[in-house]
Amino acid sequence: MSEEFSLVTEASVANWQHSTDIVVVGLGCAGAAAAIEATNVGGQVIVLERASSGGGTSALSGGVIYLGGGTPLQKACGFEDSPDEMYKYMVASCGDKADPERIRAYCDGSVEHYRWFLDQDVPFKPVFYPHYSGEPPNEDGLVFSGSENAHPFNQLAIPAPRGHVPQTEGQAGGLLMRKLIGAVKASHAEIQTDTRVEHLIASSDGRIIGVMARCAGETHTIRASRGVILSAGGFINNKAMLQTHAPLLRKCKFRVGAEGDDGSGIRLGTAAGALAIGLEMGSISLPIIPPKSVLRGIMVNAQGQRFINEDVYYGRLGEYALYRADGRAFLILDERTFVRPEVPREVVAVGETIEELERELGLPRGSLEATLTLYNQHAQKSEDPVFNKASEYVTPLLHPPFGALDCTTENSLYAVFTLGGLKTNVHGQALNADDVPIPGLYAAGRTSASLAAPGYSSGISIGDATFFARRAASHALNS
Amino acid sequence: MSEEFSLVTEASVANWQHSTDIVVVGLGCAGAAAAIEATNVGGQVIVLERASSGGGTSALSGGVIYLGGGTPLQKACGFEDSPDEMYKYMVASCGDKADPERIRAYCDGSVEHYRWFLDQDVPFKPVFYPHYSGEPPNEDGLVFSGSENAHPFNQLAIPAPRGHVPQTEGQAGGLLMRKLIGAVKASHAEIQTDTRVEHLIASSDGRIIGVMARCAGETHTIRASRGVILSAGGFINNKAMLQTHAPLLRKCKFRVGAEGDDGSGIRLGTAAGALAIGLEMGSISLPIIPPKSVLRGIMVNAQGQRFINEDVYYGRLGEYALYRADGRAFLILDERTFVRPEVPREVVAVGETIEELERELGLPRGSLEATLTLYNQHAQKSEDPVFNKASEYVTPLLHPPFGALDCTTENSLYAVFTLGGLKTNVHGQALNADDVPIPGLYAAGRTSASLAAPGYSSGISIGDATFFARRAASHALNS
Repeated sequence: MSEEFSLVTEASVANWQHSTDIVVVGLGCAGAAAAIEATNVGGQVIVLERASSGGGTSALSGGVIYLGGGTPLQKACGFEDSPDEMYKYMVASCGDKADPERIRAYCDGSVEHYRWFLDQDVPFKPVFYPHYSGEPPNEDGLVFSGSENAHPFNQLAIPAPRGHVPQTEGQAGGLLMRKLIGAVKASHAEIQTDTRVEHLIASSDGRIIGVMARCAGETHTIRASRGVILSAGGFINNKAMLQTHAPLLRKCKFRVGAEGDDGSGIRLGTAAGALAIGLEMGSISLPIIPPKSVLRGIMVNAQGQRFINEDVYYGRLGEYALYRADGRAFLILDERTFVRPEVPREVVAVGETIEELERELGLPRGSLEATLTLYNQHAQKSEDPVFNKASEYVTPLLHPPFGALDCTTENSLYAVFTLGGLKTNVHGQALNADDVPIPGLYAAGRTSASLAAPGYSSGISIGDATFFARRAASHALNS
Repeated sequence: MSEEFSLVTEASVANWQHSTDIVVVGLGCAGAAAAIEATNVGGQVIVLERASSGGGTSALSGGVIYLGGGTPLQKACGFEDSPDEMYKYMVASCGDKADPERIRAYCDGSVEHYRWFLDQDVPFKPVFYPHYSGEPPNEDGLVFSGSENAHPFNQLAIPAPRGHVPQTEGQAGGLLMRKLIGAVKASHAEIQTDTRVEHLIASSDGRIIGVMARCAGETHTIRASRGVILSAGGFINNKAMLQTHAPLLRKCKFRVGAEGDDGSGIRLGTAAGALAIGLEMGSISLPIIPPKSVLRGIMVNAQGQRFINEDVYYGRLGEYALYRADGRAFLILDERTFVRPEVPREVVAVGETIEELERELGLPRGSLEATLTLYNQHAQKSEDPVFNKASEYVTPLLHPPFGALDCTTENSLYAVFTLGGLKTNVHGQALNADDVPIPGLYAAGRTSASLAAPGYSSGISIGDATFFARRAASHALNS
């Protein structure tokens, strides 16, 4: 069969050009973590990266790592946390398809995993950034990067900030990857760039024993005696796969992903019999902050109704806006609360009365008025019994002119990447449809299904990518 | 590899015990249609059914077939329709993942497909059932079985009833399957019951050339020179697959499916390299009618808000209630509109005032009152500009006592089956991840991905199952 990425059998391999313990496919944060972990305990590693240099989507990201359970950074910033509270939050927030067993392992190992980043010389400034949830604009090291403080999660788990951010101004993914790739280069791992893995190779008994990779017009066979780790990203840049599996995500304007996020890692895995799950899911961020004070507005849908407490993390806000409101959302503010968000959002309508604003927005007659009347009635007492927005953001919207910021998918920024991928267990082993590990095959990062499914908090991707990649490397060498 | 359902290669087949043109796996309506079509043009067919007799989920169903474009039955009942209007409705209603090309083929071939049912001696009484959308309780042959008359679909396509129902009292699936299985038995197709297909068999060049099936403790190999058609149902009765792919569906109380709907057809296909898509999707029916007059109530979520025009088809109502309202829904009626639905639904709260009802239901203070105030304000003029419910169902709810019918997933009937499955083209060929047909492999019915994805109207399953099964049989014999 000539299917792209199809599995090749050992019998058809004439000779092996290279041999190693572990082949790592893709040098984003997961691939780097796997290589570092394996070489640390003496394993031989070849890392294959199709781009001219490593980094992948990780290097383009904010660099936030979701960690907790009482890390030294949390303690230095004066926050208490425990693996149990972290677990409660993640299980509650990570969506219907999240795997509690993997979440448990992740929370229990989180403090150790933080120390591992320190070992890789990743710096964290022990200062908490208090101004909003998300990626801090300065060098501060700790931030809320989820909905921990928002209803209902603040009722289910003691909130703690868990966004651990490498110390640099602005987007920290570049620094993070410089440090991790530096550690790989300092190890005895071999990195081959400009090399594209085209096929996995299986032994006659079904074990994955190597890869066929193309570099400079030639095909190479590389034997991996301990296993192959697929860490080649997601598929946000594969239009056909998006259309087939997650067409709604195509509505989002800003795709977060390196060119390599074309699903090739997932395809290599499924061609080898691994099960892909949750391919319909994405992380969908609708940033309306900073500044945080914009949360005093109310978000309404095409029926003029609120649909969420506006102070949830912008990842959750985006999911609700896309999945439940069809990407038709407007943020309503009055004269006293109006503020222009830093992420550009157009003022799409202004009215001297709510009725006028409603008409300008094309909302059903009386709908926005009814919503605001109810909201204001409770807001007089700083309460929001309908959606339970935190009282600090609840204030009556009474003072004209009223304005609406455009938060529709058509006209505003929704940042999206895929969360679905190969199903893995706590050891990072890729599982088949019977939930049985495929010998020799591992997956990590967005080639594997995320811990969040969807229910995203920032830092989960780099977090689960590095955490389970390390486990994969360790399992491959020790099993 | 010992994976369940794994593909077996020809080399490992010692001898073929049987040989035929086409093997059909599963004798529901799709399997029957394939067998009838193939034998009609002289093809040899062996149908393998794991139960002791055929019928499958089709026999347990309401037997509605979604057909249109101007069928003789539609004309006899005085309705105009065209393939174009049918196409417009289906494209608009069948969800984000629906395949326009397959819908187009289905609509264009619908009148001929209706005649095919007549050829199989399936009777349709030329009487339109006007009282509600769904399955008629009497022998009437034509009914609305979707949201054609509801907003926004009535703005996008000229409504026509397309639910074609075999003539019998009550559930018509049994009659339909007696007729179809009768036609199979009258053909020269061979039916083997109590026979479970365990593996597909592939030639060395990747063509599917037969099956290994188990019957009475023995394994048989059956060669299929023209192809294998997988028509073995969906996976609503496979808890592990549901948990992995569609955990939300587990909340629904009533699973529509024969025991065989355990995903084995899908698993056989994916083990052969076919792509499964949309496994998260289900048809989710929340029947509140009959009687139709219950639609004068309003459906609210846990925030006391309406979330849909209540007069949409109960399939769409269920999807919105589960996916957008977390399965927390209540139907609010007043003294003048109150009526007890025929599908049992408990009165979960009663109040002399809206405030009292709101409190009884645990809804946020003032929320239901705000919703009703807005609704009643427009309803005075028989209008519903917020959700565009048809004016015949719009009447102010003013007269105490007020009551709420429980429409939550916890306490009420949601009927569910899976819509995801193997990706197929207009010929019923199973496609791999490159969208390339797998030679010799076909899928139909709920083993394949539905035309609706989700966006269900009743009759689409039996409709697409029989339609594309016929095409599959024809393609297998002629290609």
